[in-house]
Amino acid sequence: MGSFTADPFDVVVVGGGSGGYATALRAAQLGLEVALIEKGELGGTCLHQGCIPTKALLHVAEVADQAREGAAIGVRGTVDGIDMAAVRGFREATVGRLHKGLQGLVGGARRITRVAGEGRLVDGRTVEVGGVRYTGANLVLATGSVARTLPGVEIGGRVLTSAEALELDEVPGRVVIIGGSVIGVEFASLWRSFGAEVTVVEAAARLVPAEDPAISQQLGRAFRRRRIAVRTGVSVTAVEQREDGAAVVLGNGEKLEADHVLVAVGRAPFTDGLGLAEAGIDTDQGWVRTDRSLATGVPGVYAVGDLVRGPQLAHRGFAHGIFVAERIAGLDPEPVDDLGVPRVTYGDPEIVSVGLTEPQAVEEFGAAETAEYDLGGNGRSQILRAAGMVKLVRRPGGAIVGVHMIGARLGEQSGEAALIVKAGLTPEYLSGLLHAHPTQNEALGEAALALAGKPLHGHA
Amino acid sequence: MGSFTADPFDVVVVGGGSGGYATALRAAQLGLEVALIEKGELGGTCLHQGCIPTKALLHVAEVADQAREGAAIGVRGTVDGIDMAAVRGFREATVGRLHKGLQGLVGGARRITRVAGEGRLVDGRTVEVGGVRYTGANLVLATGSVARTLPGVEIGGRVLTSAEALELDEVPGRVVIIGGSVIGVEFASLWRSFGAEVTVVEAAARLVPAEDPAISQQLGRAFRRRRIAVRTGVSVTAVEQREDGAAVVLGNGEKLEADHVLVAVGRAPFTDGLGLAEAGIDTDQGWVRTDRSLATGVPGVYAVGDLVRGPQLAHRGFAHGIFVAERIAGLDPEPVDDLGVPRVTYGDPEIVSVGLTEPQAVEEFGAAETAEYDLGGNGRSQILRAAGMVKLVRRPGGAIVGVHMIGARLGEQSGEAALIVKAGLTPEYLSGLLHAHPTQNEALGEAALALAGKPLHGHA
Repeated sequence: MGSFTADPFDVVVVGGGSGGYATALRAAQLGLEVALIEKGELGGTCLHQGCIPTKALLHVAEVADQAREGAAIGVRGTVDGIDMAAVRGFREATVGRLHKGLQGLVGGARRITRVAGEGRLVDGRTVEVGGVRYTGANLVLATGSVARTLPGVEIGGRVLTSAEALELDEVPGRVVIIGGSVIGVEFASLWRSFGAEVTVVEAAARLVPAEDPAISQQLGRAFRRRRIAVRTGVSVTAVEQREDGAAVVLGNGEKLEADHVLVAVGRAPFTDGLGLAEAGIDTDQGWVRTDRSLATGVPGVYAVGDLVRGPQLAHRGFAHGIFVAERIAGLDPEPVDDLGVPRVTYGDPEIVSVGLTEPQAVEEFGAAETAEYDLGGNGRSQILRAAGMVKLVRRPGGAIVGVHMIGARLGEQSGEAALIVKAGLTPEYLSGLLHAHPTQNEALGEAALALAGKPLHGHA
Repeated sequence: MGSFTADPFDVVVVGGGSGGYATALRAAQLGLEVALIEKGELGGTCLHQGCIPTKALLHVAEVADQAREGAAIGVRGTVDGIDMAAVRGFREATVGRLHKGLQGLVGGARRITRVAGEGRLVDGRTVEVGGVRYTGANLVLATGSVARTLPGVEIGGRVLTSAEALELDEVPGRVVIIGGSVIGVEFASLWRSFGAEVTVVEAAARLVPAEDPAISQQLGRAFRRRRIAVRTGVSVTAVEQREDGAAVVLGNGEKLEADHVLVAVGRAPFTDGLGLAEAGIDTDQGWVRTDRSLATGVPGVYAVGDLVRGPQLAHRGFAHGIFVAERIAGLDPEPVDDLGVPRVTYGDPEIVSVGLTEPQAVEEFGAAETAEYDLGGNGRSQILRAAGMVKLVRRPGGAIVGVHMIGARLGEQSGEAALIVKAGLTPEYLSGLLHAHPTQNEALGEAALALAGKPLHGHA
């Protein structure tokens, strides 16, 4: 093989998604020479097939819902439907603008060499791309994740993962979503807003099973109000596909007919063709094994983002990337703690959580104290007609270890929530913090007051 | 005078607005017997003529704007105008629901005796209401504020303060707003969204002169884009009223014709008929003089909320009320620090600020370090088409002492902003805090990264 070896780099990054480009940008800032290898487009799943395009669609959904309800509050007008070509235009323009910005950032960093193509490890210091070998004093694996499917269920035609669902140029009349976690719930919300009849099938006993049980309960209620059908505690035994539709067969023999089926059963780490085994890098059910500082067992090789078991979120990837770059540069950064990573499920309602659920806190501390504040007492939420609540979980007599919220637009409360958990604040401390009136943010302050035993706009 | 004296109370509160009812609720929680005197409706200006009804109107404005822009993103439909009768219905229903909730809270507190009527101090322990005297071991003054007007400008007909403006059952064709601070800017935003031609006249050299200069600049830009006319650095010499309109005469002789004129030049403490002087309570230009713990010079008499010089905000009133109640109950609460009070100006764009502006920080510390993060780099803001920025101000090498933001919906970021300033956090500390992607909240995290010298989605 006529392979050619480029000059050695300080860092070779495989994958240009959230984790990879953050590594590259921070490493370059710190004076390191970086090769950034990406086979597709800079920005990865998050920018092109995940966070950003779904949020663009969810914004259209919000505008449609608000416009429909507008007459009731004084905005005279009509809503005649969703124009999927225009939706596509908006989604593509949004992604395109951010993509261009990212290309500008990475392109403007003169220490980053971009390499287009698929990387394959030759050893723990060398990656081959299209016959050229790139060696680095350090190697960072950032190849991300891909949508899982169910055993025996083939994707294509009427059976989609989120990647295909985003590209759909029609609003399905009836859709069945397999999986009631983040991705399934976001698509349920947006398709319902677009006018579809939606059924969500979840194998666990409740929607969003990773969330606090109180959140699942409220989400169930919200979906009932929105006439989204929910089937929990049922397994899927088969998905049948026809020319003009598909059907989901449940464990009890029941068959749910639909125009489209979305398989939203999570995402698996993607390492196909990367050559991990040959380079001696350990995996565990596909995830790359690392220590707390994201080092693999092979010296100088790190993994970041969705390749590492834990919450599969872009901002965790960013934080991983920054951490690894700083570590390689010889700084002494704080490792990323998965427990402090804020988790947002978008749509209507939005869900945000940080830290421990009540059952997790009880398990860890033997007991937990909680307070729930209903958005019914929150002025701004009343104006937005946002139902939901804020729940705080504290170690008995101690710090707040979990913040859980559900309600329209509450994802934007994730910053204060994450800061509370990171700083280990008590409700007593928070009682002295002023929350602006009338904001939805106030509900977090009211929950803290309640947990401190001094509720203001609510009962003890 | 056949005056009757009720059994003595632990606390007599004069005024049932934000400051007054918070005092009463917290005092009752702490086991104190409270008389709560209110001549109008429980909830005061904020609930009935201020925060809540304006935010209801601003929500209608947002829905109207979004619906108008809906076609561009795929929501097919039309907007035919604003139905002011329906707007009134929505506003009244919103206020009514919250009013009912508040009545339930106060009514359910068995230690609170509600007294309807106007209170007048007899001495530092006694308030007379309609011939009945209420005595308390402590007296809390919470009579709030009223809209100011300009010398020689009479309110009525076509010349309004915010109270009359809220009740307006038509959208003015042309409106001139005198005053470019919070109230003026909020009405400018909402009337423009309702379709009016709006001119804002501000005597200072820039809009929102209490904000950081960078915020004023961005607001000016946003208003230009929205075609709201702005005249700064000009005084108003007269307001002329006719049957069918009004005109504002400027210092340079120019005359601005309008259908309505809004006088939004601030709010004055309201103590008419309260008998402060007779009770020996000192005032300063109308404001009740207090020490840091809100005690007046007369033992046992306190003042809370808009009566006390400082930011006139409902949440400051709440905090004052809780503080005074706890102090009277013998607890040792932390006094409310005006510098930590988050300030939100609603509308499009929204403005939120906490702590010191850059010039204030330079004055206090001799120098300041700042970072600005443009919302152009923030994915969620791009989706919402929200222009604006986040600006952080730190003491050189030290804590963040000011947070300033402008952009659609950013008011909801006030919680994290206030917590950062209260806890005296550094950008280096915040760099280790994860902000969820893609939220607007991320822009605050990006600004902190930039100020710490390690920008992610932005240039150093």
